[in-house]
Amino acid sequence: MRRKGLASMAAQTAVPTSTVDLGPASGLSCRECGEVFPLGPIFACELCFGPLEVAYDLPTGDPEALRKQIEAGPANIWRYAPLLPVPADVAEKPNLNPGWTKLIQADNLAAAIGVEPGKLFVKDDSGNPTHSFKDRVVAQALEAARAFGFTTLSCSSTGNLAGAVGAAAARAGFRSCVFIPHDLEQGKVVMAGVYGGDLVAIEGNYDDVNRFCSELIGDPLGEGWGFVNVNLRPYYGEGSKTLAYEICEQLGWVIPDQLVIPIASGSQLTKIDKGLQELIKLGLVEDKPYKIFGAQAEGCSPVSAAFKAGHDVVRPQKPNTIAKSLAIGNPADGPYVLDIARRTGGAVEDVDDEQVVDAIKLLAQTEGVFAETAGGVTVGVTKKLVEAGLIDPSLTTVVLNTGDGLKTLDAVAETSQATATIRPSLDAFRDAGLAL
Amino acid sequence: MRRKGLASMAAQTAVPTSTVDLGPASGLSCRECGEVFPLGPIFACELCFGPLEVAYDLPTGDPEALRKQIEAGPANIWRYAPLLPVPADVAEKPNLNPGWTKLIQADNLAAAIGVEPGKLFVKDDSGNPTHSFKDRVVAQALEAARAFGFTTLSCSSTGNLAGAVGAAAARAGFRSCVFIPHDLEQGKVVMAGVYGGDLVAIEGNYDDVNRFCSELIGDPLGEGWGFVNVNLRPYYGEGSKTLAYEICEQLGWVIPDQLVIPIASGSQLTKIDKGLQELIKLGLVEDKPYKIFGAQAEGCSPVSAAFKAGHDVVRPQKPNTIAKSLAIGNPADGPYVLDIARRTGGAVEDVDDEQVVDAIKLLAQTEGVFAETAGGVTVGVTKKLVEAGLIDPSLTTVVLNTGDGLKTLDAVAETSQATATIRPSLDAFRDAGLAL
Repeated sequence: MRRKGLASMAAQTAVPTSTVDLGPASGLSCRECGEVFPLGPIFACELCFGPLEVAYDLPTGDPEALRKQIEAGPANIWRYAPLLPVPADVAEKPNLNPGWTKLIQADNLAAAIGVEPGKLFVKDDSGNPTHSFKDRVVAQALEAARAFGFTTLSCSSTGNLAGAVGAAAARAGFRSCVFIPHDLEQGKVVMAGVYGGDLVAIEGNYDDVNRFCSELIGDPLGEGWGFVNVNLRPYYGEGSKTLAYEICEQLGWVIPDQLVIPIASGSQLTKIDKGLQELIKLGLVEDKPYKIFGAQAEGCSPVSAAFKAGHDVVRPQKPNTIAKSLAIGNPADGPYVLDIARRTGGAVEDVDDEQVVDAIKLLAQTEGVFAETAGGVTVGVTKKLVEAGLIDPSLTTVVLNTGDGLKTLDAVAETSQATATIRPSLDAFRDAGLAL
Repeated sequence: MRRKGLASMAAQTAVPTSTVDLGPASGLSCRECGEVFPLGPIFACELCFGPLEVAYDLPTGDPEALRKQIEAGPANIWRYAPLLPVPADVAEKPNLNPGWTKLIQADNLAAAIGVEPGKLFVKDDSGNPTHSFKDRVVAQALEAARAFGFTTLSCSSTGNLAGAVGAAAARAGFRSCVFIPHDLEQGKVVMAGVYGGDLVAIEGNYDDVNRFCSELIGDPLGEGWGFVNVNLRPYYGEGSKTLAYEICEQLGWVIPDQLVIPIASGSQLTKIDKGLQELIKLGLVEDKPYKIFGAQAEGCSPVSAAFKAGHDVVRPQKPNTIAKSLAIGNPADGPYVLDIARRTGGAVEDVDDEQVVDAIKLLAQTEGVFAETAGGVTVGVTKKLVEAGLIDPSLTTVVLNTGDGLKTLDAVAETSQATATIRPSLDAFRDAGLAL
């Protein structure tokens, strides 16, 4: 059945795979058994059901020339087009041009959590077009959708992804049809609905939405549809590599000693590691040890729990945390994350919801960066790991903020109120007794 | 009294004006009578009470060398440091580094409103650190505050500015104390409060807040305080010039034929005109005619009303519009806006709230850009002016979006809902009858 499903999916593409131009992408390879497949809208190995990822014919020339080419490129992810599954002229096609977000030297935050000055950086992906890192991955999926002749862009989502897909589809001239749980917060529905594609609320939870999408992919109803996080997932995932590329380039083509990355499905963390390895192979950065730390919210910490217990497998959890963009109880890439954290000498840690809120406010109050709850998780975990001596405060650390506080206002609403309410008079202001 | 007030304000600065280093800024000059004053925290002419603006000793060398210097600068407003009232080393100081936001070629929107392909651009300032153009102006005020030895950054605000000041102050190590009306929407209070400075709610409307701030500036309680939009206003306003610089550079050092700019106080529009004139004087762009169009919401359209009536003065209105960031009923720079619109052959136009909502959605659905209500105003006015034949569809037009839709979700909430709610089954999806 599964093989039939995969075959019928591949048949949905109107474009023969031999004519697919996705730049340096040469095929899809199974992360488990290594089997190679031609480029197409498939996501699982026909032999072992392992996840597929993009294989490349990467540039082999002079690293210095490649570095110069990249540096002369546009101020977005397409500066790395030679390393991504996209055609060479991608920058000329209509898309949201995400990426090249700020890497902020966070000396105030460093002082607050005990890191040495000049050593702590925040990679702030709230600066992307729809204000989350999802714009990076959707942009890759969009190019794959174009290459495969799809006309509708789709996804299952609980928030950030819905907006990213709706916006990218609008700009690129695709139809979009996005599936969400019916009880999503009003604000998130509006953020997803404003881009004008179809927004279908499913009576059920996120798992029900996902199951429904998988059914739809195998059905004629779904013909011509690219589900960014299902049948386009191998391409989609590659977008996270650009975080690794940008961080290293922004540090002057140097790999940071330590990275703190949030874990939802775990895909982002594994792809950042893949991106770092590619930079080393290409000679764009010097090979050196680096430690990767994964960050979860205590209320959804299956990978952290497995790491601490010394397990290789991840036991699913029922999520219960304010960090909803990380609330995946059964993370597909969990085992790979465990492997990377252990291999690099990193760790996986979690913080509770109160620590998440405190960390959001700490980042806002030290660096003026208002992060969504996922950013509270990474900053909170960084603080915890410094205190525990697992992060070396004398080495360079990069912490990811993958989204925007405006999307998770509720998390900080209770504790971010007016410090005083007064009549409009100097006497009243004096009497308010603010510590001026 | 007024002169005493100004004198006492100037006395508040701890730094002798002779040692103030604000780069090419040479002094303050009165826009009405031309009188010149030394750099300091003053904002009105001692002779005629006219508004003061920054005067410069601008670079006089080879324009090509200056262009190269700018192009080699950072990807933020500090690439234009030689043209701004900031010290030469400004990029090394802790601030939010706003600017260098996307100029989006909006071919889909162009097709929708009857502009020729390749001729319509959206300057999208939602990409700034706190997601509005206010980061540009606050960054200038912050440098002035540093130069004058102030330790507290303050403002009166109804939303965007409060967040921009709070964030900038946090990053730069200033105290902040921001004043808001007590009945501000909860979301905006949170956005302003999260940065941790004092947030004082005033029992009264925005005018009451402003009056209170003016009182505070003249009182010892306000000593050491830089009010970005009051006693630092001349510096603050210069930040809007960077919109003109960026637009021209992003178009290949060419002035667009037509610009559509929102009007609140009118300061932004007048400073963009000032910026274009400076670029011409410096030889960075060729001198050519351009038309500036001002955009207001019908519910607060004092400048539009004056333009249409052929008046030189602006009769104040009581604002009643969803475009709250533009809702200034008595715009200080109204007469200057009228002058610029008439001198350049432009116009001032307004759209009603329904047209604002339609335009927000049109922009989102054609280009994937989710604008705040002020962006709905400019896009709506652009559409209206094209239809009226006042904007030439064959010439280059740049439309400003100055803020982020996430901050004004209410405006589109009612009309951006799920298109269908279904059970998780293919039959239910089929029965929903979406036009697939």
